[in-house]
Amino acid sequence: MVKPTIKVTGNARQERGLQTPWDHRYAHRTKQMTSSAVRELLKFTEQPEVISFAGGMPAPDLFPIEEFAEACQKVLHEHGAQALQYGITEGYTPLREQISRHTARYGISINPDNVLITTGSQQALDLIGKIFINRGDRILVESPTYLGALQAWNAYGAEYITVPLDENGMDTDALEEALRYGPKFIYVLPNFQNPTGVTLSMERRYKLVELADRYGVPIIEDDPYGQLRYDGEHLPSIVAIDHQYRENHDHCYRGNVIYLSTFSKILAPGLRLAWVVAPHEVIRKMVEAKQGEDLNTSTFNQLVAHEVSKGGFLDEHIKLIRKVYRERRDAMLAAMDRYFPPEVDWTHPDGGLFLWATLPEYLTSKDVLEEALKQKVAFVTSEPFYPDGSGHRSMRLNFSYSMPDKINEGIHRLGSVIKAKAEEKKKEL
Amino acid sequence: MVKPTIKVTGNARQERGLQTPWDHRYAHRTKQMTSSAVRELLKFTEQPEVISFAGGMPAPDLFPIEEFAEACQKVLHEHGAQALQYGITEGYTPLREQISRHTARYGISINPDNVLITTGSQQALDLIGKIFINRGDRILVESPTYLGALQAWNAYGAEYITVPLDENGMDTDALEEALRYGPKFIYVLPNFQNPTGVTLSMERRYKLVELADRYGVPIIEDDPYGQLRYDGEHLPSIVAIDHQYRENHDHCYRGNVIYLSTFSKILAPGLRLAWVVAPHEVIRKMVEAKQGEDLNTSTFNQLVAHEVSKGGFLDEHIKLIRKVYRERRDAMLAAMDRYFPPEVDWTHPDGGLFLWATLPEYLTSKDVLEEALKQKVAFVTSEPFYPDGSGHRSMRLNFSYSMPDKINEGIHRLGSVIKAKAEEKKKEL
Repeated sequence: MVKPTIKVTGNARQERGLQTPWDHRYAHRTKQMTSSAVRELLKFTEQPEVISFAGGMPAPDLFPIEEFAEACQKVLHEHGAQALQYGITEGYTPLREQISRHTARYGISINPDNVLITTGSQQALDLIGKIFINRGDRILVESPTYLGALQAWNAYGAEYITVPLDENGMDTDALEEALRYGPKFIYVLPNFQNPTGVTLSMERRYKLVELADRYGVPIIEDDPYGQLRYDGEHLPSIVAIDHQYRENHDHCYRGNVIYLSTFSKILAPGLRLAWVVAPHEVIRKMVEAKQGEDLNTSTFNQLVAHEVSKGGFLDEHIKLIRKVYRERRDAMLAAMDRYFPPEVDWTHPDGGLFLWATLPEYLTSKDVLEEALKQKVAFVTSEPFYPDGSGHRSMRLNFSYSMPDKINEGIHRLGSVIKAKAEEKKKEL
Repeated sequence: MVKPTIKVTGNARQERGLQTPWDHRYAHRTKQMTSSAVRELLKFTEQPEVISFAGGMPAPDLFPIEEFAEACQKVLHEHGAQALQYGITEGYTPLREQISRHTARYGISINPDNVLITTGSQQALDLIGKIFINRGDRILVESPTYLGALQAWNAYGAEYITVPLDENGMDTDALEEALRYGPKFIYVLPNFQNPTGVTLSMERRYKLVELADRYGVPIIEDDPYGQLRYDGEHLPSIVAIDHQYRENHDHCYRGNVIYLSTFSKILAPGLRLAWVVAPHEVIRKMVEAKQGEDLNTSTFNQLVAHEVSKGGFLDEHIKLIRKVYRERRDAMLAAMDRYFPPEVDWTHPDGGLFLWATLPEYLTSKDVLEEALKQKVAFVTSEPFYPDGSGHRSMRLNFSYSMPDKINEGIHRLGSVIKAKAEEKKKEL
C-alpha cells in the first residue's frame, strides 16, 4: 500500500462543539420524530423476572413452531430459488390470492390487484403517510389512538383532529362536527381498539361510512385484531359496509376505504408480514413508495406464511388463540376485580390484546409506572396515545403475552402500587 | 343484522370525474416518485424464455438451500419463541456482534452500537433520506449512480450535484469543484459501482476522505459488492480510511462516513437483510425513523442469517460465488468481443454484478432495448441512473444471474440487434 499523504483533522467540526459531522445535518422532520415508549420499554421487559403488560406481543407459547419448521423445509426444497430471490413489490401472487379469498368471506369481492403485502402494518401506515400527507395536513383520529400511526405520520408533518371514543368506539356525533375541519382522511381501529379495547358499534359503523361518503373524506381502517373475538358476533368491517353500499361489485374494490390487517397477531410478528386492501390506483401508488423503501417484503417469509396458512391450518390456529386469549383476558379482569381499588375504571374488551384502565383524578399513570417498574411490572402510560399529549390517567394493559398466573401476580403487584400511590396522594391533599 | 338506512353514493366524487376518493389527495412528493425501471422489467423477465441482463439478481443456483434448511430447523427448535416474536429495532444483538467482528477484519474497530440491521439496503437509503434530507437539499452523487438511491431520496425532495466518473471511479478533481455547491452529503459506491462496474482507485479514496473532511461534508459509502472481487487486491473502504486517519480508536466509530452493506449479494436477497455502520448518534436517529417504518427487521430472518453465516460458512460461500461470477463476467466479456460491433465501448469490472456498455453516438439504448425485448433479451437503459435524465447511450448488463451459455446467447442476440439498429441509422443519415 502506498503511504498516503492526507490529513483528516475534524477540526472545523470540533471547534463548533459537534460530536459527529452529522449532528447539524438532520432534517427538520426529525424534530417531530420520537422514539416509541413501547419500543423503549421492550428492552426493559426482556428481563425474565419482569411481568410485562406493555407490548402488544402475542403469546410465544402459541407460535406454531412445528408447522413453521415443516413449511420452511417445503418452501426451501420446492421453491428455494424463488424464495431466496428478489420478488415483485406487490407481493407473492399466491399469497395475495389467498388474502383475496379470505377477504371475500366477509362479503368484499376483490382481486389480487387490490392487495399489497407490506413489511408489517407499520410499513403500511408509513406508506400511507408518504403518499398522502403533506406537512400540515390534518388527520382525523380517535382519541386515544394507536401510537404507531402517530409515530409514522409525525415524520410527514401530520397534524391531528381528534374525536373522543366511549365503550361503543368513536363518537360519531362528534365525528360529524370534526369532519368540518377538513381532514385528509379518517383513521379508525373498529375492533378491540388499540389502546382501549373498545369496539365500534354496528350503528356507528354505518354512520361512519355514510358520513365519510357525504363529506368526501376517505377512511383508513386498521384491523389487526378483527379475527380475535372472544365474545359476541363478528361485526362487518368498514370496508365491507362501504363495498356493500356501492354499486360496483365487479371483483375490484373501488371504494372509500383502505383496509389494513396483519399476520403478526394470528401467526407471528417475527415474519413482519401484513397486507393492505385498497382501490387498485392506491395500491399502485403504494407500490411506487414501497420500491423506494425496501423493494419488496421478504420473499422467503411470504412463501412460508402462504405454506403455513393453507389447507385450513390458520383457521384452526386462530380458534386456539381465541381460546387462550379469552382465558387470559378473563384472568386479568378477575384479578383487577380482586386487586384494584374501586376508584379505578377499566374497559371490558370483547377481543384483541388490550384493556384500558383509568386511574382516579389525583393519580397519573406515569407516577404509577415509575413505582411499578421497581416492582418489575410494566405497562404503557396513556400520553403517547393522545396526539395532543393529554390523557395522563390511563394505563394500557396487554393480556395476550403472559400466562394467567403471571397475569394474576402482575395485577396483584400493580394493584398494591396503585393503592400505595393513592394513599400517598390522599395524605398530601 | 339490523337493516341499516344509509346512502352511499359517491356522487360528489363522480361529478368531479374522480376514479376513487383518493385521487386528489396524494401528497406533493408523489409527483417526484417514479416506479423503478428495473422493478418494472422484473415482471417481464420472469418469463422463462427471456435472457435477462436487467436485474441485479444473484445466481439462484448458488443459494445455499441445504444450509438454510438446517438453519431454519435449528433456529425454530432452539430459539423459536424469540425468532417469531417482535425484536428490538436495532437488530438481533448476536448478528450485530457478528457484523462488528467482520468489520474489524478491515481495520475498523466498532461495537454493536455502531450497527443497525435494515430491511435491505434500500431501507437504509430511505432512512438516510428521512433523517437528513429537507426538500431542496443537494446530494452529491456520481454520474451515473445507483437508481435506487435516487428513488429513495426523490421522495424527500432531494436535488443533485453530479460528479462524473471514469475507469478509476468518481473524478476527485471535479469533486472539489462540486463540493463548493454545498451538498448535504456525498454518496459514493466505491467498489464495482452500480451501474458502471468501475472501482474508485486507491489514490482517489484518500483524496475523497481528505476533501470530505476539509469541506466538512460527510459521506455515504454504499458497498453491496465489496466482497465480490475477481481480480486484483481488496482496497480499503472509505470508512476504514476515514477511521484510520482519525485519532479516536476506542472501538466506537465517530467519523465522517455512514457505511452500508448487505446480505443480498453474498447470501440471499429474499431475506431482505442489510446493515449500516455509523456513529452511534446517527444509528440512534435511524432507529427512531425505523420504528415508524417497520418496527424491526424480521427477527426470524436475522436469526437464520446469523445461524447460516457462523462458523466460517459465509467465507467459504463467498469464495464459491467469486469463482462462479468471475466465469460469468469472463463469458460476457468474451461474447461482447465476439458479437458486439467495434463502435461499442464497455467497462471491464474487477468484481460485482454489472458492466456498462456505451453505444455509438447515433444510437440510444432505448432504441436497442425496444428491439432486444422482442428478441427476448432484457437490460436496463442508462437514463434512470442519471439524476438529470441525461445519458441515453449506455446499457447496464448484469452477468451474475445467467449461466455462461445463456450469457453467450443473450449477448449474441444483443449484438445482432445493435448491428441491425446501427445499419438502420446509417441508412437514415
